[in-house]
Amino acid sequence: MSTNRIYLDWNATAPLLPEARDAVLDGLDLCGNASSVHREGRAVRTRVEAARRQVAALAGADPAHVTFLAGATEAANLVLTPDFRMGRSPVGLGALYVSGMEHPAVFEGGRFPAGRRHEIPVLPTGVVDLDALDAMLAAHDKSLGLPMVALMLVNNETGIIQPVAEAAGIVHRHGGLLVVDAVQGAGRIPVSIEALDADFLILSSHKLGGPKGVGALITRGETLMPAPLVRGGGQEKGHHSGTENVPGILGFAAAAAFAADDIESRNTRIAALRDRLEDGMRAACPDVEIYGADLPRVANTSFFTLPGLKAETGQIAFDLEGIALSAGSACSSGKVGESQVLKAMGRDPRLGGLRISLGWATTDEDIDAAISAFGKIAGRRRAAGQAA
Amino acid sequence: MSTNRIYLDWNATAPLLPEARDAVLDGLDLCGNASSVHREGRAVRTRVEAARRQVAALAGADPAHVTFLAGATEAANLVLTPDFRMGRSPVGLGALYVSGMEHPAVFEGGRFPAGRRHEIPVLPTGVVDLDALDAMLAAHDKSLGLPMVALMLVNNETGIIQPVAEAAGIVHRHGGLLVVDAVQGAGRIPVSIEALDADFLILSSHKLGGPKGVGALITRGETLMPAPLVRGGGQEKGHHSGTENVPGILGFAAAAAFAADDIESRNTRIAALRDRLEDGMRAACPDVEIYGADLPRVANTSFFTLPGLKAETGQIAFDLEGIALSAGSACSSGKVGESQVLKAMGRDPRLGGLRISLGWATTDEDIDAAISAFGKIAGRRRAAGQAA
Repeated sequence: MSTNRIYLDWNATAPLLPEARDAVLDGLDLCGNASSVHREGRAVRTRVEAARRQVAALAGADPAHVTFLAGATEAANLVLTPDFRMGRSPVGLGALYVSGMEHPAVFEGGRFPAGRRHEIPVLPTGVVDLDALDAMLAAHDKSLGLPMVALMLVNNETGIIQPVAEAAGIVHRHGGLLVVDAVQGAGRIPVSIEALDADFLILSSHKLGGPKGVGALITRGETLMPAPLVRGGGQEKGHHSGTENVPGILGFAAAAAFAADDIESRNTRIAALRDRLEDGMRAACPDVEIYGADLPRVANTSFFTLPGLKAETGQIAFDLEGIALSAGSACSSGKVGESQVLKAMGRDPRLGGLRISLGWATTDEDIDAAISAFGKIAGRRRAAGQAA
Repeated sequence: MSTNRIYLDWNATAPLLPEARDAVLDGLDLCGNASSVHREGRAVRTRVEAARRQVAALAGADPAHVTFLAGATEAANLVLTPDFRMGRSPVGLGALYVSGMEHPAVFEGGRFPAGRRHEIPVLPTGVVDLDALDAMLAAHDKSLGLPMVALMLVNNETGIIQPVAEAAGIVHRHGGLLVVDAVQGAGRIPVSIEALDADFLILSSHKLGGPKGVGALITRGETLMPAPLVRGGGQEKGHHSGTENVPGILGFAAAAAFAADDIESRNTRIAALRDRLEDGMRAACPDVEIYGADLPRVANTSFFTLPGLKAETGQIAFDLEGIALSAGSACSSGKVGESQVLKAMGRDPRLGGLRISLGWATTDEDIDAAISAFGKIAGRRRAAGQAA
């Protein structure tokens, strides 16, 4: 077992950026409650509002439309609700439409009752089926209220970029609202709530290299807002109560500033590493299936299946070789190695897929090690196959 | 204006403990998602579970009964719901009873509809009226479901320790459930969920000197649990989804360990400082009204009204003298200087009260400065009164 660990699981959580670490420390050392009116409180408030501007900039949004929350899961649970308000008037939404490959935080449907959550099919390629969405929305019964649609900008397992702006056209033509889970897209491709024509956008700090425990819901306007999920002291304009997580917010903002900056040159370098990895895997094992390789994908993700190798077994084998990667997504729902995304794509989810995801700190040596480990593991699979 | 600032607003938020700062840094530098199965993920998981044991110890609870959340407000919103589950079976609660002096996070009633939240009166002394509670529960209509009662262990403004264990007897005699908001009690008096006979207990990290953005709901058992508020990846046994806030959780645990340790000798020192402060205030201004001075109070809090001085004005005056203190609680609901607690006590809430709250780092010099500032401000009030 190697003691030199290689971390290739950036889509599960990104190592903390040095800039974000400094900002968290800064926030830890600020004494005061952002809602206190004394000088300490006002100083904290100033920093929180500066952070709000940085996070807004990452999504091309108005800072007034950024609500800080404890994470992307909470943002999803806040916005996915039939219970909206226009000013003080309640506005009810009729049903939620989510694709089968959404993250569980979205797939579970937040506060929509189970019977009012519908699954949008996914094409075998791993792209959401927009024709099916169009047909579903055409059949939506508006007497219950308008439809809400939630889609991810980038799939967490395959890295495939979803046609969200196109979906927005369909959703709005049917009078619906579009929620975009941009958690795996932000920092990897340019994100603009305007260009995506989204009504709501969800961001997570720790996927950007910021600290865990903080995220944001970004809205297009302030007219139509979800009923609060967490009520109390009325922080975040009443949209999310609780003492502001100042170190988290400042760290998130620093990561957002890094993520927004120079995406293109970062991607060029990371894509070259990822392409070399995939060339190496194909050379070692021509029957490896790499998902989405000929589709628009983010630069950092490679999701593949080695026929005859269960993802769960593969993950353990890589782990023993010193390499951290993922089989499916890193959350506690579902069984280890079962891929919800492969299931949505119509594949047998039991074999599963392995996900290698890279980041700004990934080196040539990391890729060499991954290719070498892949070769070993694939070789053992072949030997086992011949022995059987 | 003094440049030497003196922080006497520990009940709003406590400065970060050095131990907690170290633990947060530790957590920041741990790379990996606690729900990942690779070596990095498992190492993070081990640390989170150790932290759970430390937080459980502060409340005399079983670590299996600690659910980490993004703060005490979120814990209140999770537990204050009519929608409970016993295993997979839904159990509906009938109504919520909260005292008028609860923190807004509890007072708002979480997921209980407005019509099913009832206010328990508070005696003019600042203690919850247990006879009234008894009568209210006797009149509770059980056909809707059993009653839930939520009470704070220590009031955030006055510091008065509430008769929670006595309340528990009444609540349980009527077949109800008791939620104890121990946010201002933990670390200031010994807290044991068993001794308090509480069914649920709420803790906040940042009031203990841990980082902001993390708290816990502690339960007596696991049989009867609230329906999740935040759903998704199924973390925290499904009670609270979202990637674990590892730095926050580790910092919280370090603060909990500090808070649980040696409360008595810390209190002896802090009570001496607080008593000297109050003697000084009474000497400078015999008509100062100090609330709860002859009742069981935590050692660190002094809540007072200076007749003729609005709390809002007083707070600004102290702030200009370099002293950070509070008028009312530090949250965005309600108007600055209006005290919900004084209102519940039947006082005119417009004059309001000023709260000085101390902590482990408070020095003799801080108290000297506070007494001196108090003298100046009281002197100006007298001069203004004579001129009028």
